[in-house]
Amino acid sequence: MNAPTALTHLVPEVHQRAVPQALLDALKARFGAQCSTALAVREQHGRDESSFEAPPPAAVVFAQSTQDVADAVKLAGPYSVPVIPFGVGSSLEGHLLAVQGGISIDVSRMNKVLAIHAEDLTVTVQPGVTRKQLNEEIKSTGLFFPIDPGADASIGGMAATRASGTNAVRYGTMRENVLALEVVTASGEVIRTGTRAKKSSAGYDLTRLMVGSEGTLGVITEVTLRLYPLPEAVSAAICSFPSIEAAVRTTIQVIQLGVPIARVELIDVNTVRMVNAYAKLGLREEPLLLMEFHGSPAGVKEQAETVQDIASEFGGNAFEWATTPEERTRLWTARHNAYFAAIQSRPGCRAISTDTCVPISRLADCLLDSVAEADASGIPYFLVGHVGDGNFHFGYLLDPNDPKEREVAEALNHKLVSRALALEGTCTGEHGVGLHKMDFLVTETGAGAVDLMRTIKRALDPQNIMNPGKIFSL
Amino acid sequence: MNAPTALTHLVPEVHQRAVPQALLDALKARFGAQCSTALAVREQHGRDESSFEAPPPAAVVFAQSTQDVADAVKLAGPYSVPVIPFGVGSSLEGHLLAVQGGISIDVSRMNKVLAIHAEDLTVTVQPGVTRKQLNEEIKSTGLFFPIDPGADASIGGMAATRASGTNAVRYGTMRENVLALEVVTASGEVIRTGTRAKKSSAGYDLTRLMVGSEGTLGVITEVTLRLYPLPEAVSAAICSFPSIEAAVRTTIQVIQLGVPIARVELIDVNTVRMVNAYAKLGLREEPLLLMEFHGSPAGVKEQAETVQDIASEFGGNAFEWATTPEERTRLWTARHNAYFAAIQSRPGCRAISTDTCVPISRLADCLLDSVAEADASGIPYFLVGHVGDGNFHFGYLLDPNDPKEREVAEALNHKLVSRALALEGTCTGEHGVGLHKMDFLVTETGAGAVDLMRTIKRALDPQNIMNPGKIFSL
Repeated sequence: MNAPTALTHLVPEVHQRAVPQALLDALKARFGAQCSTALAVREQHGRDESSFEAPPPAAVVFAQSTQDVADAVKLAGPYSVPVIPFGVGSSLEGHLLAVQGGISIDVSRMNKVLAIHAEDLTVTVQPGVTRKQLNEEIKSTGLFFPIDPGADASIGGMAATRASGTNAVRYGTMRENVLALEVVTASGEVIRTGTRAKKSSAGYDLTRLMVGSEGTLGVITEVTLRLYPLPEAVSAAICSFPSIEAAVRTTIQVIQLGVPIARVELIDVNTVRMVNAYAKLGLREEPLLLMEFHGSPAGVKEQAETVQDIASEFGGNAFEWATTPEERTRLWTARHNAYFAAIQSRPGCRAISTDTCVPISRLADCLLDSVAEADASGIPYFLVGHVGDGNFHFGYLLDPNDPKEREVAEALNHKLVSRALALEGTCTGEHGVGLHKMDFLVTETGAGAVDLMRTIKRALDPQNIMNPGKIFSL
Repeated sequence: MNAPTALTHLVPEVHQRAVPQALLDALKARFGAQCSTALAVREQHGRDESSFEAPPPAAVVFAQSTQDVADAVKLAGPYSVPVIPFGVGSSLEGHLLAVQGGISIDVSRMNKVLAIHAEDLTVTVQPGVTRKQLNEEIKSTGLFFPIDPGADASIGGMAATRASGTNAVRYGTMRENVLALEVVTASGEVIRTGTRAKKSSAGYDLTRLMVGSEGTLGVITEVTLRLYPLPEAVSAAICSFPSIEAAVRTTIQVIQLGVPIARVELIDVNTVRMVNAYAKLGLREEPLLLMEFHGSPAGVKEQAETVQDIASEFGGNAFEWATTPEERTRLWTARHNAYFAAIQSRPGCRAISTDTCVPISRLADCLLDSVAEADASGIPYFLVGHVGDGNFHFGYLLDPNDPKEREVAEALNHKLVSRALALEGTCTGEHGVGLHKMDFLVTETGAGAVDLMRTIKRALDPQNIMNPGKIFSL
């Protein structure tokens, strides 16, 4: 997937700032082997899961501490050289690309769980800890961290993009689950936002200003998160439906009734086939909802019965249950691998992923028309959705050697986003703006709000060195 | 309570900016009878429920529309005259005081519920709608809005102070429940933040930057809120305990177990007596927890049983149940009136209210030592707490003619806040910083973070006209 191809988006020409040798020398002097200018290393840090391409950064600093990050920023500042934080590289929106040149600050070695406060349901981690690592390390506490984007992303990256995933319908997103941060600002100063208190009215909510700022206001060097007790009972169910519409209408009713469902994921029939092939599953080849219920044994039973009643009204088949942890893991792994399953279904293809999110009552309107358009286009696609949140992803699977396909896909995406915005939704539920959605952001929020964002950015980062060229142009 | 007394805090001398006659003339010309310079009106708008006093604003504009607010701000701007939004005047921290002079923008006439989207569990309201009015107007939808500070506050004011209340332990605070805002900025421009989508990664989280900004970054003119289905079953219970410690330890265990309790309020024995006298209740004169359970009938039963088991381990008495809506309303009204009950218990007194919030495991440490100190001081006090969130309020009841009492109370508060901060908590869980906690904010969050707040403030409000002198000095 990584070799540049004809399909690759070239980032519109922007000023590639000079990275003077003096800075590289200073970085080498300060960081020694922790600083690399090897082409392979730079190239690996100059791309992500998006289809954008830009020249790689001039150097990569492998930070091992907050002080490392602060020093790298302080060294880059006087030269107005951009610094771009890097976690595991799983961004889908070009966040990691050095579109204006600069240096990459890789925080993957900052991967310690610093403090588990099981009794308070909080944990403090370094930004390079991944979500799976975190859950592995806190296993013995009986707690878990629910936010699960498809990739095994870093917690720092997840905070920076305001990520969510399949559990958000019940547990919220990074917005609700980050309690406090340590951040290196553009001046290289280390600040703390928030405390471990569950709520606070102490001044501006800097935590939530930083969450979702995509590295443009600071580098996140520590994250305090909320945890949740592992539910006493968990059950997962699959229910297939005669149509996507039936699955969607079931979801809408479940949410409107206030059922505290933990996960409700739509998988369309294309994607069911891809997942079956990739993960060797035997899912019935119909649109389906993958669901999970958390609670007490009685509560889980009650939720499942309610949902089953609703589903059968819409022609859903009887639930198939995944009751053992192993079966559940297999199911959810398959869901998380849908992206890779889809890529593999069309060898050599690249995917353009959409990320609209609409109020739940608008979900059918938004989704069904977009399915009809995608079907009519003839372009293969996958469709998965965190439908309980009104969020879904089309992945258009494109032949990289056919520029017309990209054009068609971009046109589909454009129609979809326009529809979502008209339905009072957002162009991005969880992936972030990055390079791909800057125009959509203006349409969505209005020029005034984006100007206000710019004003904040200019005030906090006067030299525009923090991951410049993302979210909005300056 | 409103006549200045010997006890009144005089706001430290600050520059009272001139309000030129030309501005008053322009306001009169634009707003006619909607603009008042009558002393009584100005005085009413120049104070709140805090014990601070400052000269009243020079004029009050009764805004009836967003355009009114924008025009008032635009008129004041060129003169660098402060504008201070006013809802119902229930702030406890001096937010409404014209400490640098200026004009008050009263939004209480902007009190329309603009759009109920029951199918999406959202509602959009003008800022002057109060929380009780909102719940009254959405009654027929089967939904409710859970955030309930003691006062019947305005939704705009609640957003501005990031308010919460008794239901926050289950439903979150204004931070989690405001989806989108319309805001008039310092330049008089109208911007929108957020959409009705449940989640979004679209750029900086301006919604949460504005929530809790205490009017210092803009005037909130529209608020979109999350609503919740009225639970199928509700039951409220009172449980009294041999000691505060027993009540607190019960709470800690309930939270740590992840019981989704909807409300768990501590009332100390002083306050029980006050509430009994005020509301003519016959509550047993012991420390007690007032609890509420929301869910399905079976779920509520299950929660209650779990909590009852825990309570009895700590010597709690059998639950007394309030099962009818009327009984429950009576109970919660009594809780909400605790402040007024306390004030009445010492005729002529004034209260200084504390607002610390700590991680749940630190609650006993924070609370019990502070109770001992308050008892030793001899000053009458009430003590109520949203203990499920680690948040509680002492109200020291002071003789306004005895400056020594205030000194003692401030010393108690200082000790309490220092203790809470050392325990990784916050100086304010839900009341805001206002005038009273500026120094505490610096201690809590560090000079660097407060400087970052100042930088944002200066960038968004270069003339410092939006409710200046609150949260931090500039």
